[in-house]
This record gives sequence, structure tokens and C-alpha cells, in this order.
Amino acid sequence: MKILVLNCGSSSLKYQLIDMNTNEVMASGKYERIGEKEAFITHKACGKKVTIEHTAMDHTEAIDFTLKQLVNPEYKVIDSLDEVNAIGHRLVHGGEKISKSVIIDDNVVEVLKECTDLAPLHNPAGIMGIEACKKVMPGKPMVGVFDTAFHQTMPKEKYLYPIPYEYYEKYGIRKYGFHGTSHMYVSERLAEILNKDIKDLKIVTCHLGQGSSVCAIKGGESIDTSMGLTPLGGLPMVTRSGDLDPSVVTFIMKKENMNPEEADSMLNKKSGLTAVSGMVPDFREIELASYDENNERAQIAIKQFTYTIASYVAKYAVAMGGVDYIVFTGGVGENQINIRKSICEQLEFMGVNIDLEANNMRGEEKMISKADSTIKVYVVPTNEELMIAKETERLIK
Amino acid sequence: MKILVLNCGSSSLKYQLIDMNTNEVMASGKYERIGEKEAFITHKACGKKVTIEHTAMDHTEAIDFTLKQLVNPEYKVIDSLDEVNAIGHRLVHGGEKISKSVIIDDNVVEVLKECTDLAPLHNPAGIMGIEACKKVMPGKPMVGVFDTAFHQTMPKEKYLYPIPYEYYEKYGIRKYGFHGTSHMYVSERLAEILNKDIKDLKIVTCHLGQGSSVCAIKGGESIDTSMGLTPLGGLPMVTRSGDLDPSVVTFIMKKENMNPEEADSMLNKKSGLTAVSGMVPDFREIELASYDENNERAQIAIKQFTYTIASYVAKYAVAMGGVDYIVFTGGVGENQINIRKSICEQLEFMGVNIDLEANNMRGEEKMISKADSTIKVYVVPTNEELMIAKETERLIK
Repeated sequence: MKILVLNCGSSSLKYQLIDMNTNEVMASGKYERIGEKEAFITHKACGKKVTIEHTAMDHTEAIDFTLKQLVNPEYKVIDSLDEVNAIGHRLVHGGEKISKSVIIDDNVVEVLKECTDLAPLHNPAGIMGIEACKKVMPGKPMVGVFDTAFHQTMPKEKYLYPIPYEYYEKYGIRKYGFHGTSHMYVSERLAEILNKDIKDLKIVTCHLGQGSSVCAIKGGESIDTSMGLTPLGGLPMVTRSGDLDPSVVTFIMKKENMNPEEADSMLNKKSGLTAVSGMVPDFREIELASYDENNERAQIAIKQFTYTIASYVAKYAVAMGGVDYIVFTGGVGENQINIRKSICEQLEFMGVNIDLEANNMRGEEKMISKADSTIKVYVVPTNEELMIAKETERLIK
Repeated sequence: MKILVLNCGSSSLKYQLIDMNTNEVMASGKYERIGEKEAFITHKACGKKVTIEHTAMDHTEAIDFTLKQLVNPEYKVIDSLDEVNAIGHRLVHGGEKISKSVIIDDNVVEVLKECTDLAPLHNPAGIMGIEACKKVMPGKPMVGVFDTAFHQTMPKEKYLYPIPYEYYEKYGIRKYGFHGTSHMYVSERLAEILNKDIKDLKIVTCHLGQGSSVCAIKGGESIDTSMGLTPLGGLPMVTRSGDLDPSVVTFIMKKENMNPEEADSMLNKKSGLTAVSGMVPDFREIELASYDENNERAQIAIKQFTYTIASYVAKYAVAMGGVDYIVFTGGVGENQINIRKSICEQLEFMGVNIDLEANNMRGEEKMISKADSTIKVYVVPTNEELMIAKETERLIK
């Protein structure tokens, strides 16, 4: 079976064609600047990478041209589009109505519309992708895999905010959590590696990248996670603040005469490690600068980041009555050796004992704790596209 | 030596006269509705409690009348005001300039004025109290004990927020922390009880009451605490939200067309356990309601409260590389047996083993963990007034 995985942004389209027999990525790429004359696609297949300028005024034109590349004789991976058995869409916000992957029908599109307030950039893009596929590949089965769905198992005391209850009822303001597909993938993959039933495991997964979140997974279910109503909550991130004393927000708004939209923008785009370090929004550069003993602000940014992550791991030990496994994933979690080291060292009091030699690698699926570590620590590279493809395969079967 | 301890609110005045030889409270009381015709004082001394209606148009008149009660022949505790050796003022916000108790001079009043933005209700009241004392008891030595001072030992990575650095430089926006006098008192008292040097101890103090905060005290110094720029931050409290995903604030402001002052008011007065439970702002009533199995919202409010406190204890174990002692204090911490039980049970994974029998009491200074508990747990009733008196005595000597 071959599954096409699509991730639609407002002016972009990422895709992978995956062969489910081998889990192999047959082709992948990205369409950018959709809606502009200068639109272009970067396509990888058969060991080749090509960039083609080709105007696509909407997602329908972009998907149509993308599909042509799959059968383009120069680097074709399939003979006919009939070979694509189904399409898996990465979708963001399913609110409280969607708690697992679903076959896409009119109801799902309706839910995406209802939740547009909660994900004003992502949900309309997801709808555009779905509608475009209907036109270009009519009748092809489609599955939606939502970033929020995995966290719908959180108990009410974890997802309700201590604010007037009417805002939950009227506007759906609660903790939703994000990165669900990644947290689900790496926790299931860990159980596979261990050859254990996930039902018996208490796992904390740390998805660390440009955006970062931590998740408490007990018996295979998310029972708490750090991101909140939106992906702004939880940890300090490269440009996002994470959770704050809310009086910080109102204090700045009063002083700077800011409206809520301006405050959102400041907290999402000009905060986090970038703000503390006073540097460009690049995690690796900030981390590198933190080794310069004169760069106090870069050091503070990295210390805040690792302290907060370690604190969440400890918090989720409270939530689950202990932790058996910690998993690092995401660009930073898979590749930044010293970040993992620092987090693990701050958890020594809980019985974490990192193996510095095993940890001295990037991007490998590997245990990085010593044999005597009471909590085992793993790196598991994430693969949201494969997870989406697997969910799609499972549902259409 | 006799010390008068004053705690001035905008329209109130709390006081205690303390004999430092015995730590005995000789007289205490509260003046209310200062500035109104209906002002009255409730005064306790010599086993008597009297309430006197007596107009006090400002703090000077209120303090003058209060002092008269100390020498009132009907229930006098001193023969002359000359016996009062000094005055200790409970003050709130000293910003970054005040990191310990200080003899009050013009500079201290200047700092209180500079920090008025950060404590718009409390600092002006503190200044009124100081000025009134200067008029009524000219030349009497005065000491200021600040709620924020104890936390000035926090390292920079704990007190800086991950928001644009200019807001720290321009407006002093950072974590300050509060309840400092209480956290200091109970940690020092614990060391006394244990007959150990506080320099060797890692303590988490939980001051739980109408307002609540948790503090990590390593070697006698606060290295992290839950309240932030204002006392709104950290834990969910009876009417305050605690820390939030900041997009929750801006989302509500947009939906409800709220300005920052209205948002502050909502987050400070209409949030927390009261909002979640949908009940009156009374901790004991909410806790009591949570035992009714049909009252899901009261249960959620209490679960959120205890989970967040246990999470902070675990977080501060990260901050200190472990915890030796947990101390409960404040109205809730000293008296609510099941709250302590629930928090301790959520920390079992760290080696906390509560002694249910020892815990079955209110307001006693006592160890409530079992002998085999790797982290020892104590209840230590707080006494901020005595701490202020002791600091005053120490400084004027």
C-alpha cells in the first residue's frame, strides 16, 4: 500500500509518498509561496532533488503539479496515481470533538471550521488541502490525523484552566496540547523497541525543537502535556514565552499601550530563548553562544530551557506516580548532546544516570542511560509522516 | 525589648506589640475602614477583646488612637509609649534594591515610591504607615521587612522571564516572589527545631492560604519561588489563576473586549479554585464540597491545587538537586489535613511517606512523615509578625 501524506500551510504544502510495506519514503518535498507567481516546488525522488518554479495560485494547482512529479518519467516513483491508495492529512485543531485519527468526511471539515478560532492559521489551510484533494483525486480515501487528538485523554483537572468556567463553555478555552502525533509515535516506537506492552509503561516524551512540548504518557495515553490552548504555552521556546504569570502580559500591555494581537505577536515571535539571549532565533546558535563564558544571557536562556524541561519531567512523575522512561525527540532532542546531558543531570535526584558515551551521538534511536539508571532514557527520532501514514493505512483497511 | 509590628493596608492597620524576651504578644488588633467615618478598631489585650468605633481619617489618626489603647488603664500593657523600643513595618515591594530587612530612612521610602507600579495598593499604604509613625512617635527607630526581600537571592535564570529583555530593563518586569517573611520564618524555625545548620539543608516551604506560594530554600537562601511579578503567579489560588498559557489571557480579552485592567481583575478576583468549583471564595467550603461525590467541579479545583503544589515540590527538587524537608504553613497548610495528605501521597515516588496519625491535627508544630520517609515533612505554623519583630530587634541592636 502507498500513502500520500500532506501537511498544508497557508501558502505551503509538504508531502511524502510512503510505501507501507517497507516504510520507505518514495518521494518527498515542499511547495512554497502558493498563491504567488513566484511559487516553486522542491521535490526529492530517486536520489534526485529538483527545484521547479511553477506558479500555483491555490492548493488545488499545487497538489495537481505535485502529483505530476510522482509520475514524471525523469524521476517517477509510480506509474499511475491509481497506485496511491489513500491520503493522510496532518491537521492541527480538532477541539474536543476529535480524539483520534478519522476518515475525512463533511463532519470533519465542519469540525475544522468550528475550531478555526483556536487555530486561525492552520485549520483553514487544512481545509484548503482537503478540498484540493477532492478536486484532483476525487473519491480517494482521506484520513485526518490531528495534532491535538492524542491529548484528548487528559483528565478534566489537567485540561481545565483556573479561570471563570463560562470561558470554557462559551469559547472552548482549555488546555488542548499539540505535537500529539509526535508524542504518540515516539512512545509507541519505544514500546516496540522494548518489546513491551505500552499499557504497562509510564513515559515522559520530550519533543524539543523550534517549538517544544513535554508529555506524560501512562499506559499509552496522554494524561498531561505542557502546551496549552495554543502552542504558546508550557516551556520557553526559541521565540515563544511558554507559561507566564499572566500579570506580566497585562503589565506590558498597559505600559506599552499594546492591544491583544500585538501582545500575541510579542509573546509568540519575540520572546523565549531569543529574547533572553538577545540573539537571532536559532537554537543552535544560542546554544553555541552559551559556551562563551562571557555570554551570560545565552547561558541564562539555555539554563531556563533545560531547567524547565527537567521540571516538567519531575511534574509528570507526580502525575503518573513515577516515570519508567524518558524519550528525547525533535530537532533539538535528537541532536543536541549537551542539552540532553544537562536535563538528565538535573534529574539525577530521581535516579536518572546518563551514559555520556552513549549520549555522544546525533539522531540515532538509542538508549542513552546507564544500566543502573532507575529511569531509562532513550533518543527516538520522531517521524510524524510515518505515523500519519500508519494511521491512514489502519483506518482505510 | 518591646517591638510594635505594623502592617498597613490602604484602609486598614494590623498591629502587634511583642515582648522580645518571651516572644509573647502583649497586645494585637486591627483598625478598619480608615478614612471613613465608620472606622473602628478591634483590640486584644490582657485577655480582653474590645471593639471601639472611632473615626480615623488617616493612618496618623489610626496609629495615634491605637497607641492610646496600649496605655489605656482598662487593659494597659505598658505604662508609657517610651517602653516601645522600635517599630517593625511589614512592607511589600522592594524591587531589586532591597534584599534584606532595613532600617527605614528616606532612601527606603524612595524605593517604596519607585516600586509603586509593581505594588500599586500595598506600597502607598506602607509609606502612609511610615509617615504616620514619624508624626506620632518622632525619633522612634523603624525597620522595614519586605515581602520580596527574601527572594532576592534567586539566580538570574530563575527570575528573568523569557520575554523581550527591554521590559526587564525599562520596567523591572521579572519574578520577585512574595510571602518572603513567612518562607524565611518557617525555614529558620525548622532548622531550630532540628538543631541543624540551615546552610546544610534543602527545604521546600509551602505557604498555603488565601494566597499560596511554594519556595525552594537551599542553604537558607531562596533560589526559586512560585509567585512572580505580582502575587498572581504560580499556583491556582482561592480567587487567583496562577501561571497560565498567556494566549488564554489575550484570547479572552479579544472575545470579551476586555482591557488589561479588567483582565487583571478577572484573573485576581474571579479565577482560581472559586472559578473552577463555581463556589464562594472560601477554601474550606470548596474543600468540604469536594467530598461530595456529585460535586465534580469542587473535586477538580482541589485536585488542580494539590497536583500543582506537588509539582512545584518536584520542580524544586530539580532546582536543588533533591529535597531534605517539606514544610507546610499558612492557614490551609497548617489546618487542612487532607490537603497535606493528598500532596504527600502524590510525592510518594520521591520517597515521601506521610504518617497519617501524626498528620491528623491542626496548627501544631510537628513532623508528619514516618521515620522511613526519605524526605521529612513538617507543619510549622507561620508567624510573620514575630519574624518582623526579630528582624527589627536584630537591626536596631
